Amino acid sequence: MPFARVTLLKGKSDEYIAAVSDGIHQALVDEYEVPLTDKFQAFHELEPGRLIFDRHYFGGPRSYDFIVIAITAGRPRETATRQAFYKRLVELLGQKPGVRKEDVMVVISTSERDEWSFSNGEAQMVAAA
Amino acid sequence: MPFARVTLLKGKSDEYIAAVSDGIHQALVDEYEVPLTDKFQAFHELEPGRLIFDRHYFGGPRSYDFIVIAITAGRPRETATRQAFYKRLVELLGQKPGVRKEDVMVVISTSERDEWSFSNGEAQMVAAA
Amino acid sequence: MPFARVTLLKGKSDEYIAAVSDGIHQALVDEYEVPLTDKFQAFHELEPGRLIFDRHYFGGPRSYDFIVIAITAGRPRETATRQAFYKRLVELLGQKPGVRKEDVMVVISTSERDEWSFSNGEAQMVAAA
Repeated sequence: MPFARVTLLKGKSDEYIAAVSDGIHQALVDEYEVPLTDKFQAFHELEPGRLIFDRHYFGGPRSYDFIVIAITAGRPRETATRQAFYKRLVELLGQKPGVRKEDVMVVISTSERDEWSFSNGEAQMVAAA
Repeated sequence: MPFARVTLLKGKSDEYIAAVSDGIHQALVDEYEVPLTDKFQAFHELEPGRLIFDRHYFGGPRSYDFIVIAITAGRPRETATRQAFYKRLVELLGQKPGVRKEDVMVVISTSERDEWSFSNGEAQMVAAA
Repeated sequence: MPFARVTLLKGKSDEYIAAVSDGIHQALVDEYEVPLTDKFQAFHELEPGRLIFDRHYFGGPRSYDFIVIAITAGRPRETATRQAFYKRLVELLGQKPGVRKEDVMVVISTSERDEWSFSNGEAQMVAAA
């Protein structure tokens, strides 16, 4: 259900991207009530000067390893669930590939159940409701 | 009103992209109550390993032709309208350029009418209301 | 709080991109109640045929300088505030780098306060509430 659009500066290895991908998904599974196989992500790697961020607003200091993780989720979660997800996320990304927690930004949007079609022209979340 | 952000793997021809563009827009016109000239789309073509998806979650099997179509719409639609749109979309994309229906994922978000400015620094949907 | 994802065709200079970035942020600060250091933006520069737009729908005529500014905001604003923001935005972008107001499209989405984590695995907007 979640679709994660991840934006970072160009220059990371395939292994680094794969580790970020795994960390994001594992945090969703561990703390955001997401099934293991419900994994959909896009990574956008931008040229210098195309990812712009304040170094210190509400956290940081941010570095050139800054990552924005924009997640579209399929239903709301409790505030405590969201907080647990953020915490787990920086924990996992810190372990592998070693992203500093200061460099991780998340913004979640929530769509309705009938606003999703995973495949086959069907609204699976409605059929499944 | 809708803005469609389309994400797929790199390697498709200009003709393929144009056909996907046309199919998405035609499905919006046919089944989502969108005017013919209300066409705004961005295509993001990603390198291998930058578009990550489960092959079988809620559909599939997905292939490397997998496409994520993220649509921001200007007002909610009925569930039946959404379902008709998904169905029409895979029908049209299947005809041209020949995308398998298993490879089409859609997620819709809905913004308020005053959250849109199409041009000229004006909120046209409010003025028009 | 706002995260702005900006999409335009490839071919602009670093100075042009920087001026668009500054103009967007200044308009948010001037008219959208955004703190000066709350600046987070990503610029996506697309190849020809990958940014598709109608030349005349609800405004225009649009040119190849067309820019889509998709903003995720942290709380709703009044309609009048949104209108003032759009107006200020085209004013500033018109001054520098000289984008025609016909070429500026904006769509705003609004997320909940606990849907943001700016850094450090924390939900700063909740803690700060």
